[in-house]
Amino acid sequence: MQNRKGFPEKLHSVREVVEEVLKASTLRIGEEEVTVGIEAIGRIASRDVKARIDIPSFDRTLLDGYAARSEDIVYASPESPVSLRLVPKNLGKIGPGECIELNTGEPVPLGADVLVPYEYTSRHGGIVYVYRSFPSGYGVGLRGEDVQRGEIIIHKGERIRPWHMALVSSQGIPSIHVYKKIRAAVFSTGEEILEPGEPYVEGKLYDSTRRLVLAQLHEMGLDVTDAGLLGDDEDEIYSKFKELLENYDIVFSIGGTSMGRRDYTVKALKRLKPDPFYHGFAIKPGRPGAIGVVNGKIVMALSGFPVAALAELELVFKPIIERLYGTRLGYPRVKAKLVKRIPSQPGILELYRVRVWVEDDNYLVEPLRLTGSGVLSTLIRGNGLLRIPEDSTGYEVGDEVWVEILDPQKITGS
Amino acid sequence: MQNRKGFPEKLHSVREVVEEVLKASTLRIGEEEVTVGIEAIGRIASRDVKARIDIPSFDRTLLDGYAARSEDIVYASPESPVSLRLVPKNLGKIGPGECIELNTGEPVPLGADVLVPYEYTSRHGGIVYVYRSFPSGYGVGLRGEDVQRGEIIIHKGERIRPWHMALVSSQGIPSIHVYKKIRAAVFSTGEEILEPGEPYVEGKLYDSTRRLVLAQLHEMGLDVTDAGLLGDDEDEIYSKFKELLENYDIVFSIGGTSMGRRDYTVKALKRLKPDPFYHGFAIKPGRPGAIGVVNGKIVMALSGFPVAALAELELVFKPIIERLYGTRLGYPRVKAKLVKRIPSQPGILELYRVRVWVEDDNYLVEPLRLTGSGVLSTLIRGNGLLRIPEDSTGYEVGDEVWVEILDPQKITGS
Repeated sequence: MQNRKGFPEKLHSVREVVEEVLKASTLRIGEEEVTVGIEAIGRIASRDVKARIDIPSFDRTLLDGYAARSEDIVYASPESPVSLRLVPKNLGKIGPGECIELNTGEPVPLGADVLVPYEYTSRHGGIVYVYRSFPSGYGVGLRGEDVQRGEIIIHKGERIRPWHMALVSSQGIPSIHVYKKIRAAVFSTGEEILEPGEPYVEGKLYDSTRRLVLAQLHEMGLDVTDAGLLGDDEDEIYSKFKELLENYDIVFSIGGTSMGRRDYTVKALKRLKPDPFYHGFAIKPGRPGAIGVVNGKIVMALSGFPVAALAELELVFKPIIERLYGTRLGYPRVKAKLVKRIPSQPGILELYRVRVWVEDDNYLVEPLRLTGSGVLSTLIRGNGLLRIPEDSTGYEVGDEVWVEILDPQKITGS
Repeated sequence: MQNRKGFPEKLHSVREVVEEVLKASTLRIGEEEVTVGIEAIGRIASRDVKARIDIPSFDRTLLDGYAARSEDIVYASPESPVSLRLVPKNLGKIGPGECIELNTGEPVPLGADVLVPYEYTSRHGGIVYVYRSFPSGYGVGLRGEDVQRGEIIIHKGERIRPWHMALVSSQGIPSIHVYKKIRAAVFSTGEEILEPGEPYVEGKLYDSTRRLVLAQLHEMGLDVTDAGLLGDDEDEIYSKFKELLENYDIVFSIGGTSMGRRDYTVKALKRLKPDPFYHGFAIKPGRPGAIGVVNGKIVMALSGFPVAALAELELVFKPIIERLYGTRLGYPRVKAKLVKRIPSQPGILELYRVRVWVEDDNYLVEPLRLTGSGVLSTLIRGNGLLRIPEDSTGYEVGDEVWVEILDPQKITGS
């Protein structure tokens, strides 16, 4: 739980935190080979994948008709068609005055440089009459015109999408290299927390933040482990941190980050002698979070409030993971017109949960309240995120702002 | 392989195809219960989920300070502070002239209606001096203010995202109902096709479409099975269709859809006596596709070309699956300015693969070539889709158009 007096005195800029944590971290992401198929979707390429063969791999026809020599039909016209002798396809080559009948996608025979479409021909027995001339190369797809051997078809750091499957498999490549998933463990703390399924106890509350954090880290491409719920005991939390750090790349705690009497998680984390160590981020929400590096591994203490924890992940952790994987995990952005003023405190990076909708063929955006109560409900009422940079004092009604879309399904009016 | 002469004579509108297929289909999507956690992410809710408890579940403090009665401090001012007697928290109630010290998030004691922040108090032993008046309700979050019991927190048909986890688990709900995944099998046909990993043979080509289709259906939320590669034999294809229809909800074939000599897949499909049956869609690319209903199940014959098959899935199949699941599977849309003219044939729904980027703080969009060669490469060069409706004759340079974003990671300049 955070409180007014409970904010850390000194707030650290995201830039500083990200740089220093990355500098001290010795995490090296391994790679593994996955079969080209569904299991590769969503993974991040750890190497460039280059085309092995030209596509098309031979000069091929783009139409159905007759392969011919353009020089033979230069003077062809409706009035004086040129007659060509049809030779069998399996010859694989034509000489002067000859042609071969072909379907789309077949290899162009030796000697031919043009594909005459059926529409401009007529046929009488073994003779084909051509009624028009065509420039050399007409109706022919050249070898390598689509994809050239050696060309990069997946770049290192790209997230694999369905269409990458088409490209890679068209090259005959059966498997690709992707980064191993970073292994993260998440535990939460708090005597007042109940687990879903447990009977309700007046005055307590059910966990929401841990399940949110696990789901969000999973969407960022991490291999997450739910390490359960602890009480408020500093020693117990310290032991849990130590234990998890032996088996995971990154360890997250939830809750107990406020300054003062209730910062048991931060105190436990400090006993691990993290270097560097930051408690207090220049972000809103999410100020009370902490992060440190212990034996080269990253340990992060997230706020107990779901919206604050989400902001700590989005604003502080995501840039770190993006740098580790050499990729971007951003949401698609749209430009939208603000219907409500948003004041902002300079020096603080703010993250607003917003509602975006389409009206009169344009995007409009409304910030949702993030403080006080009405916190959980903003998670489902909102469908986007608005970042207000450190140097901004906010935006006025009517300003056009860039908004990240979290949930395209929930955009009404479109 | 499709060809100019190979297009079906009559093209069926997407609207007609979707309506008639849904009318004849007897597919009923079952539901299953999943634990609130990572396995629920991406699934589609099959029932509304309602809040069981109010959040907050009690009137709680929003600040650290002293719970008091607003009527006691009406005349408090810096010049004449009101003195209140501090009573122990575990009493759970206050009487006139009393107060209780509380942290943020704690239950408001009986009798108290205001939380006086520390900043406006001073304390001397068991006496708290209050220097300002506060209206009733100040610093107090009312029960149900965030989420009200009975409120819908997940709507039937919604795709489960991480933040839904927070809401559902805050309600103590351990599991939710989601639609079962539709089970689809996909096979491809073509003597000329090689499987990745096989040695290359001159004049043949490696499969790209089947792996693309499997990946795309997986992203649409289907449970897909790779049913392999067949030759061009109509009997063999017919048997495969029959066999797969016994075990799967939906069966897809790839290739052999052109009219004429090479429509062996369509001929095999017809022998199953589908009703209704459509061969030829009023879309571009993807005209030669076919779809039918056999024993209430859906059978779809996709084109062999990857870009055509993708359009058939996007324009014809996706609306069907959206209706079956009662959901929307759309990509996020942005408005972008066209840098190149796009002519379009009226009566045909066209799908262009496009490249979208940000320049001077605005989205620009360029259509990529979809016909002739340069087909596979447009899959990775593009990052968006542009739909041109049936009634449009296309767009001019400078027109603002709505573009669907496939790959936010690939938008440069943003």
